[in-house]
Amino acid sequence: MPVYLAVIGPSRATPAVEAAAFEVGALVAASGAILVCGGGGGAMEAACRGAKSAGGVTVGILPGATRADANPSVDIALPTGMGEARNTLVVRAADAVIAVGGGVGTLSEIGLALKMGKPVVGLGTWEVAPPPGETPLATVRRAGTPDEAVRAALGRRD
Amino acid sequence: MPVYLAVIGPSRATPAVEAAAFEVGALVAASGAILVCGGGGGAMEAACRGAKSAGGVTVGILPGATRADANPSVDIALPTGMGEARNTLVVRAADAVIAVGGGVGTLSEIGLALKMGKPVVGLGTWEVAPPPGETPLATVRRAGTPDEAVRAALGRRD
Amino acid sequence: MPVYLAVIGPSRATPAVEAAAFEVGALVAASGAILVCGGGGGAMEAACRGAKSAGGVTVGILPGATRADANPSVDIALPTGMGEARNTLVVRAADAVIAVGGGVGTLSEIGLALKMGKPVVGLGTWEVAPPPGETPLATVRRAGTPDEAVRAALGRRD
Amino acid sequence: MPVYLAVIGPSRATPAVEAAAFEVGALVAASGAILVCGGGGGAMEAACRGAKSAGGVTVGILPGATRADANPSVDIALPTGMGEARNTLVVRAADAVIAVGGGVGTLSEIGLALKMGKPVVGLGTWEVAPPPGETPLATVRRAGTPDEAVRAALGRRD
Repeated sequence: MPVYLAVIGPSRATPAVEAAAFEVGALVAASGAILVCGGGGGAMEAACRGAKSAGGVTVGILPGATRADANPSVDIALPTGMGEARNTLVVRAADAVIAVGGGVGTLSEIGLALKMGKPVVGLGTWEVAPPPGETPLATVRRAGTPDEAVRAALGRRD
Repeated sequence: MPVYLAVIGPSRATPAVEAAAFEVGALVAASGAILVCGGGGGAMEAACRGAKSAGGVTVGILPGATRADANPSVDIALPTGMGEARNTLVVRAADAVIAVGGGVGTLSEIGLALKMGKPVVGLGTWEVAPPPGETPLATVRRAGTPDEAVRAALGRRD
Repeated sequence: MPVYLAVIGPSRATPAVEAAAFEVGALVAASGAILVCGGGGGAMEAACRGAKSAGGVTVGILPGATRADANPSVDIALPTGMGEARNTLVVRAADAVIAVGGGVGTLSEIGLALKMGKPVVGLGTWEVAPPPGETPLATVRRAGTPDEAVRAALGRRD
Repeated sequence: MPVYLAVIGPSRATPAVEAAAFEVGALVAASGAILVCGGGGGAMEAACRGAKSAGGVTVGILPGATRADANPSVDIALPTGMGEARNTLVVRAADAVIAVGGGVGTLSEIGLALKMGKPVVGLGTWEVAPPPGETPLATVRRAGTPDEAVRAALGRRD
């Protein structure tokens, strides 16, 4: 069975975030993993383009009710009509999650992935700190480069 | 139409968090607002008990497929059978969200609420910081006391 | 714990269907059960009005992202932003389901309720027949009057 | 953009239903369409095997929280953890729906597809009749053979 890695990130991303997402996508594909994302623009689109540049397979799980909003590098476009609840589906579909850049939707997906007990690797993403006195069971593992991020996501897969 | 306020927090909470959640729940009810939560234990149960102590109405939106897991202070218990996707529903149902304490599910709900453009007030909860160079449109408003939290949630309601 | 009964039916209903839904709602409330529905117009609105006329409590689980579309007789209005997936939630929330009138959304809810193993009572609703040679585990129980429908829904509750 | 066709049917199917589902899957794949289903056994598994025998691509949208329950002919396995709400996703992902055999989950998907305005073709599936005096906007189109079913699903695609 193939590995599924989710790349999460903002639909409006800086060039630096897009470049990182592209490289992450390419490395995900090069590893043989299937790339799952929210199917939209920005970091999601860059990750899909990267994956396709390396011959990978991309799945986009969309918030709207039609495929019209899928970015052109999505192979399998799945509209949900469920709005933000689709974030749960993106995370659920993955063995591990790589967060590239910020955006509040990304923050929700980080929380959902930690809640589901899935490894979360962060590359230039949110810093999240629990309240004083609480020790969450899981945290975001920081990576410095796309290569480090993808290796961490693969290595920490159960 | 009544105001709906969500109180989000961990199902396993410290006594201090539970005490704060109880007080938040009581103040939500005293304001006339309907309290929405995930229906479980810990901070959720304390908030519901607080609301009932002040004669309020409580709604619990549960992750499982039956009402069996609702805490005893939930008036309207709605099982969803949707697991973590129910977090989206808790936030969606509310005009504003008050986060008490930590927990990774709480983190996901903070992100979802910000994504939906709903006011989020934090009382001893996660600190979240966007990546350098990014300015999210919305952030968590910190409160020092239950009273300040509920007033902020009501005041920032659109 | 109170009983929850879902009343499902079309948002555009004939006067006869609305009259039946009103009476069903009133009888649900008179029994002490909480009425759950999709929160919209037509049969849903008539059922809610009926329940309120008898002093009951009504819950509307809405397909859209805001409470604006709830009918005025909904006490607890829960927007989901999940479109048709909210049909699953209406059925999941109930101990038994009463279908009044037709509509294709109603048909989906009948199927979902049977799938979840919940009693389904039909009052002037879809006739559904399995393919030849197949015997489904559960079927719709037909009722001739609102009173018969509500009694059947309550009696068949587990 | 490719066409997506959903094949819906029971997880426990008779040999005749499985044979029909296999042939439908093969014809879906031969048409170049992507086959979407619930990813489980019975009619779903037969349809996936058929599609793979013709070199097609299969997507399974699963009710559970892990990929473990996907049948072995699913290429892209997406666990949802949403239970029956996944039926909405199967239908939402498709341009048209082919129902093979019965089962109450199948009935729910027929209703959901009609509600979403998607063409529904039935091959030895439920007979559904609206209540007297009501004319639903859409109905199930009956097919006598797998070939007729797939052609109807493709031809009626908008």
